[in-house]
Amino acid sequence: MSEKIIYADNAATTKMSAAAKEAMLRCIDDYYGNPSSLHRAGQAALKEVQGARETISALLGCDAKELTFTSCASEADNQAIISAAKTGAQNGKKHIISTSFEHHAVLKTLEKLKDEGFYITLLNVHETGVIRPEELEKAIRPDTCLVSVMYANNEIGSIQPIEEAGRLCHEKGVLFHTDAVQAVGHIPIDVKKQNIDMLSLSAHKFHGPKGIGALYAKKGILLTSLINGGEQERGKRAGTENVPAIAAMAAALKEECENMDENTVYVKALRERLIFGLSQIKGSVLNGERYDRLAGNVNFCFEQTDGEMLSLLLSEKGICISTGSACASGSPEPSHVLMALGRSRSIAKSAVRISLCRYNTEDEIDCIISEVRKAVEKLRRS
Amino acid sequence: MSEKIIYADNAATTKMSAAAKEAMLRCIDDYYGNPSSLHRAGQAALKEVQGARETISALLGCDAKELTFTSCASEADNQAIISAAKTGAQNGKKHIISTSFEHHAVLKTLEKLKDEGFYITLLNVHETGVIRPEELEKAIRPDTCLVSVMYANNEIGSIQPIEEAGRLCHEKGVLFHTDAVQAVGHIPIDVKKQNIDMLSLSAHKFHGPKGIGALYAKKGILLTSLINGGEQERGKRAGTENVPAIAAMAAALKEECENMDENTVYVKALRERLIFGLSQIKGSVLNGERYDRLAGNVNFCFEQTDGEMLSLLLSEKGICISTGSACASGSPEPSHVLMALGRSRSIAKSAVRISLCRYNTEDEIDCIISEVRKAVEKLRRS
Repeated sequence: MSEKIIYADNAATTKMSAAAKEAMLRCIDDYYGNPSSLHRAGQAALKEVQGARETISALLGCDAKELTFTSCASEADNQAIISAAKTGAQNGKKHIISTSFEHHAVLKTLEKLKDEGFYITLLNVHETGVIRPEELEKAIRPDTCLVSVMYANNEIGSIQPIEEAGRLCHEKGVLFHTDAVQAVGHIPIDVKKQNIDMLSLSAHKFHGPKGIGALYAKKGILLTSLINGGEQERGKRAGTENVPAIAAMAAALKEECENMDENTVYVKALRERLIFGLSQIKGSVLNGERYDRLAGNVNFCFEQTDGEMLSLLLSEKGICISTGSACASGSPEPSHVLMALGRSRSIAKSAVRISLCRYNTEDEIDCIISEVRKAVEKLRRS
Repeated sequence: MSEKIIYADNAATTKMSAAAKEAMLRCIDDYYGNPSSLHRAGQAALKEVQGARETISALLGCDAKELTFTSCASEADNQAIISAAKTGAQNGKKHIISTSFEHHAVLKTLEKLKDEGFYITLLNVHETGVIRPEELEKAIRPDTCLVSVMYANNEIGSIQPIEEAGRLCHEKGVLFHTDAVQAVGHIPIDVKKQNIDMLSLSAHKFHGPKGIGALYAKKGILLTSLINGGEQERGKRAGTENVPAIAAMAAALKEECENMDENTVYVKALRERLIFGLSQIKGSVLNGERYDRLAGNVNFCFEQTDGEMLSLLLSEKGICISTGSACASGSPEPSHVLMALGRSRSIAKSAVRISLCRYNTEDEIDCIISEVRKAVEKLRRS
């Protein structure tokens, strides 16, 4: 990619920060041992892993022993849900509550469990993309073993009442998991204060590397290993630890958390500029809450257009935006998230998501507004 | 690790090559998009993944569509075995054959299947660490659905008669999997010619990055996804593709395969020098075949010593060697590999593995010999 591009698909993945890259290279060059090895090179690598574990757990408000490194957030989501389901089944509890607009890593795992005899309730997220705690409270049954609600939605950026949902779960003795992939590094998180029992995260959503994630699971929760073999991660996840990626994830998260306030102010200002600009286009509809959303998330439908065509026209101009989740790209179906908001199929298919980060600039925003306007007009003419 | 070390634990993990690092950095800097995204940044990243898939599959002799990227070889081993077992069970075939000295990623998965009602036969590897094809032939039953034999052993470097084992399996219509973690990049592999239906590999064993592996599965084999979510890897493995690691794995493997002949000659000469030197120590016993072993593998028992103590004494001198598999380090049990060879517990506990690569030098070998001799003498005096 030698040409200049405007990258505005940060909910799909982010560019690695200099801090993350530096940590990664340090491990590649100097700490290349296997952390399971007892010799000097191994122990030096282990120290990197332990340091990263302490850094990340401190930033999440949990104990280092409560953090398991995984290869991605999909793995963490799968592991969290499967583990809770297994324990639940052993106690005769086979009911799980989630929402209708979770990431597929959650929804597909729930579908699999449904095939195995579990009962699944998916909460409505209503037009704003937010669950209603009273509906969660009503949905909890004596046989509910798990509630899984994503922290912030990957398509429309809506933020859930996590602390309250967790409190309701705890009142009824139910485990509470959150897929916090879009939130970690962007919203202050304190798992204890926010009543979270399990939390999944992914480094490449906050300027860390791809191929690494983590699962926080409160002390006492029995995790089922999805990958069996060596005793890495205290038997919860086999496979040689990805030391450079783990160290880079910690460096990235530390930087994002330390600068979260100013990043949020900066990115939110870009978002508001973008929302204002795109609102001026006739037939535009903002998806999700107007203000109470992720700092970098913008999601619009443009009547009488097609989101995929729109994003491809922008790509030709070097502007990278998406129709929604990258994990569902190319699917002929409209976004399940927008359908969950009650949008019609044709409106849902016109959605585009523009997700910003601290690397974006005002000039880029103005360019995006102008190019979206032109592309919308072009599509409506055709 | 600012001090100079002699790293001789390359079977545990290797230092990334310059070629691999360059490929990784290229992707981090320029191809940071999500390969599932339809825009320019995503498609550029996808092209990197596709290029890497073609490179690696060409080097293995398979079709690009037959290769699935995983986060490590443990995951690939788990997925291969679980997939074959699932298909087998559907056809009423619940018998699996493997060997007694496989990696734990294989053995633990088999144990899990045993708990689920599968029948497991583990072949004897005899004193040289090699299975006897006639014993495999006899072990195959009408209900055998899978044979899994590691290509080269991670502790004693013995190389199995893979092509013949595969032929025997095919004659009886049985799937043949090999955990080729120690072989790929070190021994010429051609999955079609060598009758291999499934093969697991890990990049960090051939100077590629940690956190990435692959599973080759012959066209027609139905893989069960261990991680569900997005449709990455054509539905066989959810989670955003680890583009930089995938590209780096391809670059590393290409370099190792292109220089395999000269690397093998060079490393084998170091190995012979080391074996000769260590053989001069009284009470030393070489484990595994004298010549027919991995170019870089040396494994010795020294009577009346303890392998862990020996390797720690060497570590103090900056020499990194191990007692066996890093994945089993710290276990009070003697190596299951050496026990499978018929060694006594006390002799098995005295074993050390020294695994060399093309970065090692003759001077390092001489230093290792001298320090092992001193350490053995010290241990025997104490």
